[in-house]
Amino acid sequence: MATNRITQLFGIQYPIIQGGMVWCSGWKLAAAVSNNGGLGLLGAGSMHLDVLREHIRKCRAATNKPFGVNIPLRYPEIEPAMQLIVEEGVQIVFTSAGNPATWTSFLKNNGITVAHVVSNTKFAVKCEEAGVDALVAEGFEAGGHNGREETTSMTLIPQIRRATGLPLLAAGGIALGQQILAAIVLGADGVQIGTRFALTQESSASEAFKRACIASQEGDTMLTLKKLVPTRLIKNNFFQQVAAAEERGASIDELTALLGKGRAKKGIFEGDVENGELEIGQAASLIDDIPTVAEVMQEFLPFISKII
Amino acid sequence: MATNRITQLFGIQYPIIQGGMVWCSGWKLAAAVSNNGGLGLLGAGSMHLDVLREHIRKCRAATNKPFGVNIPLRYPEIEPAMQLIVEEGVQIVFTSAGNPATWTSFLKNNGITVAHVVSNTKFAVKCEEAGVDALVAEGFEAGGHNGREETTSMTLIPQIRRATGLPLLAAGGIALGQQILAAIVLGADGVQIGTRFALTQESSASEAFKRACIASQEGDTMLTLKKLVPTRLIKNNFFQQVAAAEERGASIDELTALLGKGRAKKGIFEGDVENGELEIGQAASLIDDIPTVAEVMQEFLPFISKII
Repeated sequence: MATNRITQLFGIQYPIIQGGMVWCSGWKLAAAVSNNGGLGLLGAGSMHLDVLREHIRKCRAATNKPFGVNIPLRYPEIEPAMQLIVEEGVQIVFTSAGNPATWTSFLKNNGITVAHVVSNTKFAVKCEEAGVDALVAEGFEAGGHNGREETTSMTLIPQIRRATGLPLLAAGGIALGQQILAAIVLGADGVQIGTRFALTQESSASEAFKRACIASQEGDTMLTLKKLVPTRLIKNNFFQQVAAAEERGASIDELTALLGKGRAKKGIFEGDVENGELEIGQAASLIDDIPTVAEVMQEFLPFISKII
Repeated sequence: MATNRITQLFGIQYPIIQGGMVWCSGWKLAAAVSNNGGLGLLGAGSMHLDVLREHIRKCRAATNKPFGVNIPLRYPEIEPAMQLIVEEGVQIVFTSAGNPATWTSFLKNNGITVAHVVSNTKFAVKCEEAGVDALVAEGFEAGGHNGREETTSMTLIPQIRRATGLPLLAAGGIALGQQILAAIVLGADGVQIGTRFALTQESSASEAFKRACIASQEGDTMLTLKKLVPTRLIKNNFFQQVAAAEERGASIDELTALLGKGRAKKGIFEGDVENGELEIGQAASLIDDIPTVAEVMQEFLPFISKII
């Protein structure tokens, strides 16, 4: 079986990582991706500590293949979460939304392979200095939280490739086999795919969210809430309220109040597609079915066979 | 010599079109690109009628290869401009910024090959209905005027490829050979390149503009003026004024007054890099030299040889 730097680093068959997405990436999704030759990630960002522990254990019971945890460094209980990850014997951690210098040494000292998500070269270089094992370069197309510089995958991948020799995963806008191939041509060693896996049978998102996403057309997502954390959302009723507030120059405090608490849960997990935050990538417009993970991987295989 | 649909349609050697950019794309640039096997386009958007006529004649004198004219359909004297294009025997016209149904029949009836620039599928389908010969799909990464839906090249190219069978040129974020190859993998038949050709010796932009662009880093351009026409600019003093006005919710009238007249000429042609509009694509951050067109084409050749 052919391999490359990504498959070797994570001990997987194909250089396909499933993004650890809030309210989508529980043990069912992660185990399915790992069982199908990719790397599944649990999305700790939407899990309390006890839920995270439960999902790690269930994922381990459901697959004998490698899997990992994605944890945003803004996680409110980050110290006990990192302890828990070590205690539970997690072997692979993807960190995001923060400085890679903070937790990389701790994780590496505990024998964990570490990848970090960046949206610019500056943080890519910081990752290399911090001893991170692999990078995820996430473009403007990606769903959910996003970088401030709005650099797209087409520009970002070659830019990061120039800046560092680290194994590089491209993310943002990648849902089809030919997009995987394009990312490799641009300089990536593999891909991290969010949107396509969020819209599968095994994703823990609500059926209503999945249906709203596959019904969306080109131009139906937009990067918004830029005064808070730039976030790509479907343009539903909640989005329109934010857009109206921003148009009249609403302050950070007003926007924070408008956002409130639990909007992503409401939209993605509870299925309130009008008043929730529907975090999904631009590539949703290219998707119009809700297949199993195995079916998605089958679609990718002819393209993967060209790259490893 | 190998060919494809784009080289056959325009009678050129390589499927590389030089974007017709305001204040950059005069006869020197267009003739140089055509003489080096691509398709040079004159940028009529910044030319009065007499200047356009002069550039067409000088371009014809400088090359015996095909070249074309790019004309935005918002051009203030559009009817005499189209008459002039026919009178001067121009064989290829790229239209942009408007409805392709308006002028395509007129141009086709005069034996002219027509391409139209779109940023979404809806207009791509309109182009096909209007009888356009080829499409340019321009992503969010592109410099200058841009679409409202912010769809990036990674997502837009496969989306447009699905919607129409027309010969397809990808534009936006493409400055390197591997980006040309990636665009082809995503479904394009060729590319339209702006930024890389704007920053060559033969471009008519000012030296100060070119130097500001090659000095720019990742994140130094941003899509702005979204209440008027979304425009990608370098974040100079003028940009900061616009950003501050937008943050406090400035009206369309206020923004129009702030923009004033002739900002792009001031920035690009006259070289006022602080107070002018510096229209350039995200890919400027990947560029740090001002070579000749021949040198740029030489860099592309190893990649072009893989696609045709």
